[in-house]
Amino acid sequence: MKIELYPIGIVKKGEENCQKIEIYKDFLKAIEGIEDFKYLWVLFWLHKISPNDRKTLQVYPQGNFSIPKRGVFTTRSPVRPNPIGLTKVEFLKREENVIFVKGLDAFEGSPVLDIKSF
Amino acid sequence: MKIELYPIGIVKKGEENCQKIEIYKDFLKAIEGIEDFKYLWVLFWLHKISPNDRKTLQVYPQGNFSIPKRGVFTTRSPVRPNPIGLTKVEFLKREENVIFVKGLDAFEGSPVLDIKSF
Repeated sequence: MKIELYPIGIVKKGEENCQKIEIYKDFLKAIEGIEDFKYLWVLFWLHKISPNDRKTLQVYPQGNFSIPKRGVFTTRSPVRPNPIGLTKVEFLKREENVIFVKGLDAFEGSPVLDIKSF
Repeated sequence: MKIELYPIGIVKKGEENCQKIEIYKDFLKAIEGIEDFKYLWVLFWLHKISPNDRKTLQVYPQGNFSIPKRGVFTTRSPVRPNPIGLTKVEFLKREENVIFVKGLDAFEGSPVLDIKSF
């Protein structure tokens, strides 16, 4: 079984305390009302992970070689079979199709897959 | 840009207070050490969502027709461009490649995409 996703936006260059997500215009209606929320969950694609990294099943947690390797499903490592990043961010403001948030630990250029609020 | 995922497990028939995730044998090493965690984040594929549902950009939150529609990215609605379910669950126990958890609101048969702990 193969599952296909497509980006709904992209992480743009931001600053230390403010990251920018550009939502693609086709999905503008999907962020209507976002100003009412203080926190959002952002799912993004870890686009720097190679196909080979996706085969890695165990890692040293937080890159700490002094403790034993663990299964990737017990960590937040970007190396995993389906490299989806998940971060809870603080919503700051919106300018049309651009959302300004705080706390997003995603590289510039990361495809954004989904945003949830709950 | 197209992103391809593949299931790493499947949601099996459970009970009200206990849901079962069968991890496929190829990924058994990736759950090593999972017993040390009380909570897990489970990402799963909302496999009952149709291709047409993926085009829906606004919904009545919690199916409540008395309040205005909102953008799907401000909700937890299963209807969204990339229908990935996200639930924080309590880890109960593990029997080989089967993980028993509490709080997973996924249909039986849902493909599991990722598990994280943080």
